[in-house]
Parts: sequence; structure tokens; C-alpha cells
Amino acid sequence: MTDVLREVTDADLDAIEIGAAILGTGGGGNPYIGKLRCREELKKGNRIPVIPLAEVPDDWLVVSLGGIGAPVVGVEKIEEGEECLRALRAVEKEMDVKVDALISAEIGGANSMEPMLTAAQAGLPVIDGDGMGRAFPEMQMCTWSIYGHREAPAAMADEKGSIVVIRDTPDDVWLERIARAVVVTMGAAAGLATQPMRGDFVKRAAVPSTITQALNLGRAVLLANENNTDPVQTVIDQENGKLLMTGKIVDLERHLKGGFSVGHISLEGFGAFERDTGRIDLQNEFLVFRRNDIVEVCVPDLVVVLDSDTGLPITTEMLRYGQRIAVLGLPAHKLMRSAEALRVVGPAAFGYDDITFVPMEGT
Amino acid sequence: MTDVLREVTDADLDAIEIGAAILGTGGGGNPYIGKLRCREELKKGNRIPVIPLAEVPDDWLVVSLGGIGAPVVGVEKIEEGEECLRALRAVEKEMDVKVDALISAEIGGANSMEPMLTAAQAGLPVIDGDGMGRAFPEMQMCTWSIYGHREAPAAMADEKGSIVVIRDTPDDVWLERIARAVVVTMGAAAGLATQPMRGDFVKRAAVPSTITQALNLGRAVLLANENNTDPVQTVIDQENGKLLMTGKIVDLERHLKGGFSVGHISLEGFGAFERDTGRIDLQNEFLVFRRNDIVEVCVPDLVVVLDSDTGLPITTEMLRYGQRIAVLGLPAHKLMRSAEALRVVGPAAFGYDDITFVPMEGT
Repeated sequence: MTDVLREVTDADLDAIEIGAAILGTGGGGNPYIGKLRCREELKKGNRIPVIPLAEVPDDWLVVSLGGIGAPVVGVEKIEEGEECLRALRAVEKEMDVKVDALISAEIGGANSMEPMLTAAQAGLPVIDGDGMGRAFPEMQMCTWSIYGHREAPAAMADEKGSIVVIRDTPDDVWLERIARAVVVTMGAAAGLATQPMRGDFVKRAAVPSTITQALNLGRAVLLANENNTDPVQTVIDQENGKLLMTGKIVDLERHLKGGFSVGHISLEGFGAFERDTGRIDLQNEFLVFRRNDIVEVCVPDLVVVLDSDTGLPITTEMLRYGQRIAVLGLPAHKLMRSAEALRVVGPAAFGYDDITFVPMEGT
Repeated sequence: MTDVLREVTDADLDAIEIGAAILGTGGGGNPYIGKLRCREELKKGNRIPVIPLAEVPDDWLVVSLGGIGAPVVGVEKIEEGEECLRALRAVEKEMDVKVDALISAEIGGANSMEPMLTAAQAGLPVIDGDGMGRAFPEMQMCTWSIYGHREAPAAMADEKGSIVVIRDTPDDVWLERIARAVVVTMGAAAGLATQPMRGDFVKRAAVPSTITQALNLGRAVLLANENNTDPVQTVIDQENGKLLMTGKIVDLERHLKGGFSVGHISLEGFGAFERDTGRIDLQNEFLVFRRNDIVEVCVPDLVVVLDSDTGLPITTEMLRYGQRIAVLGLPAHKLMRSAEALRVVGPAAFGYDDITFVPMEGT
């Protein structure tokens, strides 16, 4: 365990990659390319200083940034590498300010790495925390937006040199719609930076210590594999999680709908679960786990799919028939479980009008 | 005939509407709503001063603006009325300048009215000229773009309060692509203002006197109808045009493709043309006229469809089986016929790789 993380070094990157992918709950894009880019920056002598959330000065200006696009495209289309930096500069120009620190919009998946990369490029610190504590597909699902920050003006930059500033929108749902249309034209991958937030707001609204959390999760999985201990159990212990099922994928349906990967997997349990069937619904992320047709864990709590042997996370695009997986439930941070949050990231926000969120500890 | 137009008054608006629709060659959107809005502004005591192109000071900053969207939507979705004004203000803020005058991006169709409306709202003059001398579907088809002005930064505003600034793009085709994606999200109608141009550039690049041209065209048609003289012949005389055919629509194929209205009409001639068949291809605008399967007039020259009795223009969405129409060819301005222009607005730009543009006077 790390006490207080003050800097991300080369030795941390592999672990953060694994931990961020676990918190990505199947989505959020692959952090691998971002990790390599961070490594390059560190090799050049640039650094990634980390500020604990509680130490952020009230009057600092903090920008949340990350990549936006279709995760499937991220696998094949490699960004030029300074998209987020250009988006940051565009927001600074738009507001005529200098930004003091960066923070991740979502720790889950690829956007764990983007702010660290931009921090190294820009010579800025990154804050230990994020706006989701996991991954979600849309921007209004950030705690920034849920707790009253307006994302506009926001800026987008692509690898070809286009820069688009979304200066004003009626609300963050409109910002998301416009940004989504722009990113499709930009080739389904762009960097996006949103309106600077004050430090005092970030301290209230950010899910705290999530870089540390990703780092510790990844380290634990790596260590368990080295020591031949149970990596799945290690994740559960560390996160106060619950093993929902070990099972084999016996049905898999997955298609693209509006740029999102949508579908479900069906499971036949094995081991302690051999009398159970399971089903996981997905919309980019794993959203709902049902045991024997009864909902057991749902968003905003985390439904995590790991390889049952290695404990390594399996993303929705890596799913395949016959895979042997462990399904875990991890509790969402309380900022994601409030009444305000549930309106935006609860099951109804994903079309599940018939599911009422019950914290997984209560099921 | 007007000598030098110095101001557009209420009495001019009906004529400009008709003339602009004729120059719209079937597309460009309906100027009717814009005309009503201009009338409202004039009733409030606002004015629409007009500056002849030759009198524009070299160091003036001129903004080209207009509505962007699907013409079919413009028929049903009424703009809030200040979209172009907000787009203008957004460009001024982006560049930190005050604009001296406005000019229409395209005189054909609805965008004849938008700069006059914004001029009345903003207390600015409008320049007698435009960037096409007709209507075309895409922004890079403007003379501004053809003769070296970069459209970015450009700003878009919709009726709900969203403002998007396209700050930079690799070229104007990318600007058009991004703007098109944004306008679809905005509900298929928005105001768009592009980077200010200097007066000396506008004097070189604008198609001159096209407000006057639209006004005179409309007046002539109205007068011919009053006096029971031939309105079609009046248009031909005034524009050095040519009557290509009088005919009845015997086949009509029209569908939406990528937001554009695409198709063709087939004609059986009557009167002096009773032994001929005709065909007009359309992509928002009428692009190519063929007599007995041989191309006779094509873009950038204007293929104009008028009601054969009233001389009133017929837009692509008003076409119907059995209509009796007069098809006219009108010569494009020389700025639209240069080698640079033909690369962007010649037949190949619309997918007609097998058609070579020959000025209609030569056929």
C-alpha cells in the first residue's frame, strides 16, 4: 500500500493500467496506449506530480480532461498524443486563464492516463481523484456536472489540428450531444477539456484518491500472480467487494448502437456457483448483474469482470464465448449514490425503469 | 431598375425574396420567414443600410454569415430569430474585434435575408454582393474560401442558446464537415458566422451587386405579372439567360441522402420544345440540364426552374408530377467560372466526373 501518492513514476504505470481497467467495468477505453505515452514523457525527463485531493488550494483552477470517442476506435486509431494538451490550451485561451492542475474526468479505462500524460507535457500536477470513480459513457455523468459545475465552455482537439470550442449550451446533456457529434466527425477520437473548476469545488465533488486506488488494485493483482495467491480475492478484499459468481460465458450478444457497445452475456456458474445462472447487461460498461434472473448489483455500483485465473480485467470488446470469468460487485463511492447522482447514473438513466438501485451491501 | 442601392426598405423585400429564390436554383432554403423577420425589424424602426461593394473601405472587417441546415427543415422549424446575431457576436468575441459590415455567404434562397436581418438587429450595413452569386450546399463553395480566405474561426448558434466556435481546422472542407455534424445535433438549423475578412479582400472575392440583382429580378417578375407580359422572358432578358425548355414533369425522383435532397426530374417538352425531352439532376440545387440526354447547362452556371405561367421560382421540395415549368440557364459570374472555382463548384465536385464545364454561352 502506498501512503500518500506524491508522484507517478515509471514503476507505477503498469499497476495503474490494470487498476484503471478494473475500475473501467468493461468500458472506458484501453489505457495501454496512454501508458506508453506517459512512459515516453517520463523517459524525456518530464514528471507527473500528484496532489492529494485534500491539499488542493481553494482558489486553484483545475481542468478535467480526457479522451472522448468510441472505445472500439481507440483500439485501432492511435491518437497523435497532444490532443488533450491542445484542448487544455484552447480552454485556457477561451477563459483567458492559466490552469493550476488537472484531474481525470473518469479513472476507469483510458482516461486514467490522459490527464497524467497532459500533466507531464504541460508541467502541471494531476490531482489524486476523478469525476466518476469508475467509467461511464457520457460527460453529464461526471460528479462535476452532477454537483453543479457547468462543463461549457469546453474544448475539443483532434489529431489533424481541428479545435472546436463549445462555448455555451443550455445544459450538460446538450454539451454531450454536440461533443459526440463533433467527435464522430473528428474520426471518433479527440481530446476534451472542460471549463476550469475552483479547487474548493473539486475538493467537494471529486471522488477522492482514485489514482492511488487504481495503483493499489493493480499492484495487488500483480503481486497475487507473482505469489500464486488468489488475485480475485485480493481485489475483493481491497475494495470491500463481493464475489458475485464464477462462471462460463454461454451466450454473448453485443452490437454497436449509436456508437455504443450494447448487449449482454449469459453465464453458467461453476465452483461454488454451479447451480446458478448469471446475466450481465452492458452499454459500453457492465451495468447490471442478475443471478437466476434477479437483479443483484446495478449501476452506479461496479460490476467487474475478471479472468477467473489471473484476476486481470476483461473489457466488453474482449468478451468471447466459453470464457471463464469471475464477476465482482464493488461499491460505488457515496458521491455516485446520492439522490442527485442516481438521477443521472442510476439504472433508469440507462433505460432500466423497472430497476431500483439498492446499494450492493444491502442485497 | 435601381441605380445604386443604398438601403433595403419594406417595399423591396417581396421582390428580393422572389429574386433570391430564382438565384437559389431550387435550393438555398426558403427566404420567406427571413423576409417576415426583416419586415418586423423595419417596423421597429431599425434599418438595413446597403454599401455598394466598390465603396467598402479596405480596412473594414466584414463577416459573412447565414443559416446552415437542411432546407427541408427550414420549412418546418422556425428559427428563434437571433441565431446569426449570436454567431456574429461569438466571432467578434473569439477574434476580439468589432465588425464593420456583413455580407451574405449565398444570395440564393434563405441566406439572402439572414445578413439583412442581422444588419438591422446589429445596426450594421450589409454589403451589396455575396459569396456565391447563387446557392450551393457547402461552405467551401464560397468565393471567400475559393480565393484564399480561411473560414475558421467560425461560430455557430442555435435557438436553444448553444454556441459552438470552430476555432481551427486543417481546411474549409473540415470546417464544413464539423459544422454539418454540429448543425444536425442542433436540430438541423443554426446561424453561422465565419472569420472576419478585410474589405480589400471582399472587394476582390465577392460576387458584386447581387442584392440589387435579386431585387431587380423580383421586381421584373412582379411587374410582368401585373402587366400581363411574359415573366419568364423578362428573367431571361435581365440575366442574359437562355430558355432551355418549357416542359411538363413526367418523372420525379427525390430522396434525402446525407441531409441533402438528391434526385432528378424528367420533362416532356411543350410549345417550341414539343419534340424534346429534358432531364434535370438535383442535389439540393438544380445542377445539370440535359436535352435529349445531352448535357447543355451545368454547374456553376445556373439551372433555374420557373412556373411557366407566373415566372415564380420552383424549389426542389415544391416539384411535383405534372407541373408545367420553364427551365432557364443563367450564366454564373466569372468568379465562379475560374479554374480555382471549377475545382470546387464544377461538375466533378458533385460527382459528375464525366461532365466538363462549358460556359452556357458556348453551347
